[in-house]
Amino acid sequence: MADQWQECMEFAVQVARKAGAVICAALKEEVSIMVKSSPADLVTATDQKVEEMIISSIKEKYPTHSFIGEESVAAGQGSTLTDNATWIIDPIDGTTNFVHRFPFVAVSIGFAVNKQVEFGVVYSCVEDKMYTGRKGKGAYCNGQKLQVSGQKDITKSMIVTELGSNRDPEVIKIVLSNMERLLCIPIHGIRAVGTAAVNMCLVATGGADAYYEMGIHCWDMAAAAVIVTEAGGVVLDTNGGAFDLMSRRVIAASSTEIGERIAKELQLIQLVRDDGRKE
Amino acid sequence: MADQWQECMEFAVQVARKAGAVICAALKEEVSIMVKSSPADLVTATDQKVEEMIISSIKEKYPTHSFIGEESVAAGQGSTLTDNATWIIDPIDGTTNFVHRFPFVAVSIGFAVNKQVEFGVVYSCVEDKMYTGRKGKGAYCNGQKLQVSGQKDITKSMIVTELGSNRDPEVIKIVLSNMERLLCIPIHGIRAVGTAAVNMCLVATGGADAYYEMGIHCWDMAAAAVIVTEAGGVVLDTNGGAFDLMSRRVIAASSTEIGERIAKELQLIQLVRDDGRKE
Repeated sequence: MADQWQECMEFAVQVARKAGAVICAALKEEVSIMVKSSPADLVTATDQKVEEMIISSIKEKYPTHSFIGEESVAAGQGSTLTDNATWIIDPIDGTTNFVHRFPFVAVSIGFAVNKQVEFGVVYSCVEDKMYTGRKGKGAYCNGQKLQVSGQKDITKSMIVTELGSNRDPEVIKIVLSNMERLLCIPIHGIRAVGTAAVNMCLVATGGADAYYEMGIHCWDMAAAAVIVTEAGGVVLDTNGGAFDLMSRRVIAASSTEIGERIAKELQLIQLVRDDGRKE
Repeated sequence: MADQWQECMEFAVQVARKAGAVICAALKEEVSIMVKSSPADLVTATDQKVEEMIISSIKEKYPTHSFIGEESVAAGQGSTLTDNATWIIDPIDGTTNFVHRFPFVAVSIGFAVNKQVEFGVVYSCVEDKMYTGRKGKGAYCNGQKLQVSGQKDITKSMIVTELGSNRDPEVIKIVLSNMERLLCIPIHGIRAVGTAAVNMCLVATGGADAYYEMGIHCWDMAAAAVIVTEAGGVVLDTNGGAFDLMSRRVIAASSTEIGERIAKELQLIQLVRDDGRKE
């Protein structure tokens, strides 16, 4: 069985690389933009085209598997995670970056069985960085083994997060007040490159000590979560509890200490879960 | 005379590349950190070593020129800009990134004559991107001509800025409230990669539509300012007036419209100018 998932992961890497090439080619063309949930929540024809390409490639090889894809969900398909082998796909993580040609855009492919993520592939295509993590087998970037910083002292930490695409003034207030509390601890700094998956991979490399965000989706974090834990990091809910793929909330940290310290500072945002369950 | 500055610029590129190699090598070693103006304002022995290397190389070739370097100023030397040919140097722009191995670290070398910046060289060494801009001759990255996005509509803009290293709660409040006002316009998003010079170069590439920051220094922006203007962008003071290299404030934008629109939203922070003059 283990070998079967290894083969799936190798296929995911191939598919992600092909998808990345399509995205990089599209970056050279005119991009036409559509708006989703807010004036800052964007989607393009490339998102849809790349997701279709990824899903049809995988379906052909693994016809019995299930899929949760950002654009399929936007088009009305459900996002319930069952025990079946399920591919969780974000064709372009960082669509706003893509639209602006801000150079961080990732293909994110996670793979879960019995609701547990078995492996994750994040391909940051402009940088040509292929991140992979397989449960129990470590995390890698372009073949180099990844290791989190191991930092436990929040006052010496570098944190990545995002301002997000929600433009509700109340939500913006909470997002900024969370940053304020962290900065005043103090911490070394906050960075934001505009994609959840790449932010989490930066934690896996040790370049950042933690990442947190609320309002993202399972396809933004499924793949990167296993990359972080396989690099020696931890993933938590922003309330400090166990990580829940469908909760739309995550802290990825280099240590439990930093993860829990961040959770202590965060005011939570009300969200509708990806699986529609009431909290 | 024009040829003379061309030769200086070619030399600056060589020196920046050499400095970048020293920085990249140092990223593989243990980094020991010292604190400057705040718990988040860091310096390392590499900053000092690289600045010394840059200045001594240039001095040997151009013994009559003047220098303003971040670490020399920190060590007590003045930062008065005279009419003499002056090299304005930040050996490591993004020292906090360097300390954390967050992958954006730049060598910044600006060159001013009669208080006008003639050229700028920014070498983002981890990415191996060499940005150059020469007055009247355009801006380039690794030989490719740069062009700002030209975006004029703030509601379609991507902005880069920083949370900064000041940990005074009042200053943090202003920094965050400025972000809040911009987000609520609304804009597409805010990103922060942790170096002023790279942020400004991202505007020059068109990847971001504007950058603003208060509290940075002349060595953070001298080189990148000419890269932005030569890529077709504008630089302004954060009060909307003319850019002043010694003011510690900058807006770099893809158009005057966006630059002035941002200035309208910004609450200013009280700062001591780099040249010590009272405002």
